[in-house]
Amino acid sequence: MTETESHLDHYLNSSLDNYIQETAQLCAQPSISAKKQGMNACADLVVQILERHGFHSQKFETPGNPIIIGRAQGGSERTLLFYNHYDVQPPEPLELWTTPPFEPSIRDGALYARGAKDDKGEFIARLAAVDAARTAHGGSLPCNITFILEGEEEIGSPHIAQFVREHIDLLKSNAAIWEEGGIDYEGYPGTSLGCRGILYVELEVETLKRDAHSGGAHIIPNAAWRLLEALSSLKGPQNEIRIPGFYDQALPPSSKDLELIEALPDFETWARDTYGVKEFVGGLSGKDLNRAIFNSTCNIAGLSAGYQGEGLKTVIPARASAKVDFRLVPEQDPEDIFNKLRAHLDREGFADIDLKKVGEMWPYKASADDPFIFLSAHTAESVYQRSYRLTPLTGGSSPIYAFADPLGGIPVISAGVGYADNRTHSPDEHVRLDDFLNAARHISRIIYGFSDLS
Amino acid sequence: MTETESHLDHYLNSSLDNYIQETAQLCAQPSISAKKQGMNACADLVVQILERHGFHSQKFETPGNPIIIGRAQGGSERTLLFYNHYDVQPPEPLELWTTPPFEPSIRDGALYARGAKDDKGEFIARLAAVDAARTAHGGSLPCNITFILEGEEEIGSPHIAQFVREHIDLLKSNAAIWEEGGIDYEGYPGTSLGCRGILYVELEVETLKRDAHSGGAHIIPNAAWRLLEALSSLKGPQNEIRIPGFYDQALPPSSKDLELIEALPDFETWARDTYGVKEFVGGLSGKDLNRAIFNSTCNIAGLSAGYQGEGLKTVIPARASAKVDFRLVPEQDPEDIFNKLRAHLDREGFADIDLKKVGEMWPYKASADDPFIFLSAHTAESVYQRSYRLTPLTGGSSPIYAFADPLGGIPVISAGVGYADNRTHSPDEHVRLDDFLNAARHISRIIYGFSDLS
Repeated sequence: MTETESHLDHYLNSSLDNYIQETAQLCAQPSISAKKQGMNACADLVVQILERHGFHSQKFETPGNPIIIGRAQGGSERTLLFYNHYDVQPPEPLELWTTPPFEPSIRDGALYARGAKDDKGEFIARLAAVDAARTAHGGSLPCNITFILEGEEEIGSPHIAQFVREHIDLLKSNAAIWEEGGIDYEGYPGTSLGCRGILYVELEVETLKRDAHSGGAHIIPNAAWRLLEALSSLKGPQNEIRIPGFYDQALPPSSKDLELIEALPDFETWARDTYGVKEFVGGLSGKDLNRAIFNSTCNIAGLSAGYQGEGLKTVIPARASAKVDFRLVPEQDPEDIFNKLRAHLDREGFADIDLKKVGEMWPYKASADDPFIFLSAHTAESVYQRSYRLTPLTGGSSPIYAFADPLGGIPVISAGVGYADNRTHSPDEHVRLDDFLNAARHISRIIYGFSDLS
Repeated sequence: MTETESHLDHYLNSSLDNYIQETAQLCAQPSISAKKQGMNACADLVVQILERHGFHSQKFETPGNPIIIGRAQGGSERTLLFYNHYDVQPPEPLELWTTPPFEPSIRDGALYARGAKDDKGEFIARLAAVDAARTAHGGSLPCNITFILEGEEEIGSPHIAQFVREHIDLLKSNAAIWEEGGIDYEGYPGTSLGCRGILYVELEVETLKRDAHSGGAHIIPNAAWRLLEALSSLKGPQNEIRIPGFYDQALPPSSKDLELIEALPDFETWARDTYGVKEFVGGLSGKDLNRAIFNSTCNIAGLSAGYQGEGLKTVIPARASAKVDFRLVPEQDPEDIFNKLRAHLDREGFADIDLKKVGEMWPYKASADDPFIFLSAHTAESVYQRSYRLTPLTGGSSPIYAFADPLGGIPVISAGVGYADNRTHSPDEHVRLDDFLNAARHISRIIYGFSDLS
């Protein structure tokens, strides 16, 4: 270990508790974008926190929730950009949380709260890394650092793309670290070279003015059955998506993609144990589970119709609705898919199904050969003492597309506090303190090495 | 009009307000059997009300909610039995009620409350008829009257059949008037000769230990999709139910049934307007809508999976459930259908779908030629000044089967306060005061004529 590295680590080891407390403080402030709950208060808290760590911060109003930019000058012309978000997913179902989602609780070496990992824990770990780099560098930063935090990531980032285009001057940078990262289910660090896009829609149908008694079900049309027929038309027996033209723009994996996948372990056992899966989609197993990342998906995220309480109620539901998200591989365009979905429903006789777009994001894919990726790999290997794993694509979605292109094709990587069982988006979300520390160590090394990259 | 009839009518016209107030008092006491809310308090109130009207009453505990029997002696050996129930359907969705469901409100000539029609209004209208008959008959009843009220009709009457078998001595009677009745959508009185049975089940499936992030949807199995596949296996493209053997015991309509249906008007326009139906099940219209009563049904009464709140949440639901009711025509047996449904799911590869029986009732069918039916028709025509309509079968279900056979094959008819738009089981349930009065006039005439039937 170099002297610099031991400075960085010493600082982070001795001040970890403070950063965990700061994460808890931020998590205690609800900020549920889907319910418009606590957004402005949380944005103000983020500004306070950035100022506390030496960032000149500005809060920008948008048609949705505020976007915050924090900037700190360093000793080189190069700028590293961090993207994070201060909004969180809804905490429901509440009854499955061991401790309440907005009352952060430390137990068994981890901090439990909604947002502890996604994305408040990630944000504070980065501030820890910045502080460490500043301390080890004699009180000034080795490069410029810019933070951008939005409050609508969990609802599809509807305003970030336009905001970036309108604030290029403030966001100019040479590389970016995305909202999250960490180690995989086997404890290996790594990054993904891209992510899938998403189209999130709501399908709703109304067959009656109001619910009817089910004694009339031989003639009165049932909205739940109608919705089921429409949903069933979306997928074929092999889980293929039946919307005509759906796959037209989908790029198949490249030979480099397949090579990277070959180098990765399969995660079948891990996924079986973690989720209690008996049979995977399509009966897949082994390495085929990795390769399936290049399959676009049609996922039912929610279904609702009629009586859902205890016992029985004999009604014909007048209304039924479904929330559906499509994960899209590179070159698929969510706006194009939305139009094709509407056309498909009309063509199949489902013009009565109301279709509403709730969110959309485009896919993103980077080059495996960028020096910034080598910097991340090298520093990660020194922290985690394990080889760095490159994944061609991840299953989730993020607004990377809204940054990478407008900022001149900069490389964007992941680095952070995650591990395989953080329960992101689920009850008992948490971040492990060791992971938090290692993320800060890794990122502080990236900051340190960044000004020397050609 | 005979002198007796004008005595009956005079009494009822002058005391209608009192009976409406008594109905409101009973409706103000919630008694939601599906939620076990207010059941015992309501049972006690029913006992008080029966005693107030001269009935010797007993409350019997059961494994579920209490059953109440009230008996009053009359001047003949013949006994007329009334079946009613004091439980009501859940009031949800609450936001669609103009006034709160358990705060009875009189407006526009009607009483609005959960239970105002089904079945508390029916019960009090009968007590009014009994009081009128007693008054017109010089202070004593012309025949014996027995009331039986249960508190589990809305959850499938799971305990009434056994109770009847164990209390035959108390319930012995020569004919019965069922829980409800009234005029049809064109204002004509009538009765049905039977009703369909019901099997109410809940299907539930769990594909994961907990909800997962939808970024994994290419491999992680989705409970909502799984449930949809299972539900889709239940019906074919012509709405035929695909459970093998489902129709084995189903009796086709008799020639008398078809003759009665021919004599009935078709209700297409009424049903279109009332429910805002654009297309009926199977594209039916005109008289085919009446004939469809002999089609058994498979109705989705409720669907639930994943995120159903505002905005978006990107999850793969771990659990999904559906409430489904099958309406069964004469000779179909709900226990047999349940077994066939389970076998069908297993055979189609859905052994992972958990199937729970929530309720069951058998179909019932009476003879069109009973003198009691002629008495009801004759008296109804004098009250309503319109011809009496006989319907071979109604779409709903009731525990008539649990009485008619054990009591020696007695005839069971309907007579009551209903009209076509009472919003039974729905928001803004109500009873019109004129219908209430006419039901009491009709039933008081039946009581008066009952002792003279051979």
